[in-house]
Amino acid sequence: MSSILVVGSMAFDDIETPFGKSNKIIGGAATYIAYTASYFNPNIQLVSVVGGDFPQSVIDDLEDRGVNTEGLQVKKDEKSFFWSGKYHLDMNSRDTLVTELNVLGTFDPVLPENYKNADFVMLGNLSPDVQRKVIEQMDNRPKLVAMDTMNFWMDIAREELDKTLKLVDVLIINDEETRQLTGEYSLVKGAKKIFEMGPRFLIIKKGEHGALLFHGEQMFYVPALPLEEVFDPTGAGDTFAGGFIGYMAKAGEVSFDNMKRAIIYGSAMASFCVEKFGTQRMVELTQADIDQRLQAFVDLSQIKLEV
Amino acid sequence: MSSILVVGSMAFDDIETPFGKSNKIIGGAATYIAYTASYFNPNIQLVSVVGGDFPQSVIDDLEDRGVNTEGLQVKKDEKSFFWSGKYHLDMNSRDTLVTELNVLGTFDPVLPENYKNADFVMLGNLSPDVQRKVIEQMDNRPKLVAMDTMNFWMDIAREELDKTLKLVDVLIINDEETRQLTGEYSLVKGAKKIFEMGPRFLIIKKGEHGALLFHGEQMFYVPALPLEEVFDPTGAGDTFAGGFIGYMAKAGEVSFDNMKRAIIYGSAMASFCVEKFGTQRMVELTQADIDQRLQAFVDLSQIKLEV
Repeated sequence: MSSILVVGSMAFDDIETPFGKSNKIIGGAATYIAYTASYFNPNIQLVSVVGGDFPQSVIDDLEDRGVNTEGLQVKKDEKSFFWSGKYHLDMNSRDTLVTELNVLGTFDPVLPENYKNADFVMLGNLSPDVQRKVIEQMDNRPKLVAMDTMNFWMDIAREELDKTLKLVDVLIINDEETRQLTGEYSLVKGAKKIFEMGPRFLIIKKGEHGALLFHGEQMFYVPALPLEEVFDPTGAGDTFAGGFIGYMAKAGEVSFDNMKRAIIYGSAMASFCVEKFGTQRMVELTQADIDQRLQAFVDLSQIKLEV
Repeated sequence: MSSILVVGSMAFDDIETPFGKSNKIIGGAATYIAYTASYFNPNIQLVSVVGGDFPQSVIDDLEDRGVNTEGLQVKKDEKSFFWSGKYHLDMNSRDTLVTELNVLGTFDPVLPENYKNADFVMLGNLSPDVQRKVIEQMDNRPKLVAMDTMNFWMDIAREELDKTLKLVDVLIINDEETRQLTGEYSLVKGAKKIFEMGPRFLIIKKGEHGALLFHGEQMFYVPALPLEEVFDPTGAGDTFAGGFIGYMAKAGEVSFDNMKRAIIYGSAMASFCVEKFGTQRMVELTQADIDQRLQAFVDLSQIKLEV
């Protein structure tokens, strides 16, 4: 089985949506990515940091699913990263109410020896220098390094971000971030500029409008599943990334066709994530749930066409 | 060959985009629909009205392509409908600068006898009572009646619109119009409400985000082709409708699978429309152009997935 190195935050979130308040629940990019990827390829190596307040039960649960937590730093006397946000009525925009970096502010990732030959790497949204420190500790070039980032790092750490971008194969960001990073309104033009920055693949997440994959002159577009209700969009992007890297690791081989399938798997997993608060939905899925949802994506987007 | 009855405006447009100004060019929903549908099923019956200022050369050109213009009223002493608009930088929103209804203000459509048994009907965006007058003149129930409309009619003629909706099979509108018509933010919920209003099929145009087809509990989502540049979006929706109804007429049989293919054809044709000002691109296409573009849609959205 391939190995997946996952780096990212593990956190507490407090979320308010038009449907209600979550109170303090488990969140964080690495949490969503690890849970989701474990459905496809449970050989996962986790790099993250939490405080003494983070529940051991979640760490145990991840381990039970196959996640190696040797690379998880637990700082007993400090507090975990905390984020609080409120979604607007359309669920497409949100206000951040509180961000407490806590342990994340001084995070210095150290890779255990047995992580240094991972086949696949998913760098969850984190400061770009922390993401880079992880890649630089690898002994061998992984088959595929994917990274997420956000507008915040484009604003305050563009130079660091540019250095990290040179080291990755796949950049996963949203449409607005693509426009900000490249100064191009057209996503096609934006993709070309991003290919000059380092990545060979670009995946643009468009929320309810689906996701786009670019590679050279090739493009692939997977729709999002239209839903009656989006209960809580928090973590949908990380879940997408988890489904993507999980499927790629399971497939083993980096090809454009596998990449296409991987963004369908990512989209399918993300469509579960938004059904409940936080990671709730992502810890309870069965293989039958996943197969059924994939079939919904096939029905939604696939049709035989004579050209 | 099936027959397609097309109703809608024929007009002059004056368009400004970030790329330039069109000056006064040919536009109008029926123009775009008829040109586009003629590539698939040239047996088209046109119902519209123009003034004495409308160029005979355009009418001749349509006739050369197979369009029957007996139902086109030419009011020699009056002026054609005129619209002028300016697109914003993102091309997703526009300001209407001038609307001169002229002949359209008193348009009373009269169906020639040989139009009254048309197999397929495409009601382009027009006042809903004019659209209804057309359907009511038909001798037989067509295989499929599709209609476009817009927020303007929802604002000022909701009762008339509701009456017309009861008579159609397919409603083709955009996402914002769906939300306005139904009061539902979720398009899935909106579709259910629209099915209670009359239509059995709903097609939601989402511009650069593609198009969604709803029928009962079934959904299909065709992406839009990501483009380097959108030169002029005017008429893209009408072109989509023309490709849709043209393909349906060519296929002959109303099935959900044909409908899926029809929205891919509609999307492919719309992707041409935006490449140049006005109808310019829609009058010059070859079968090879269309086949190539369809292949681009297959490459963009189709992948074998083992579930």
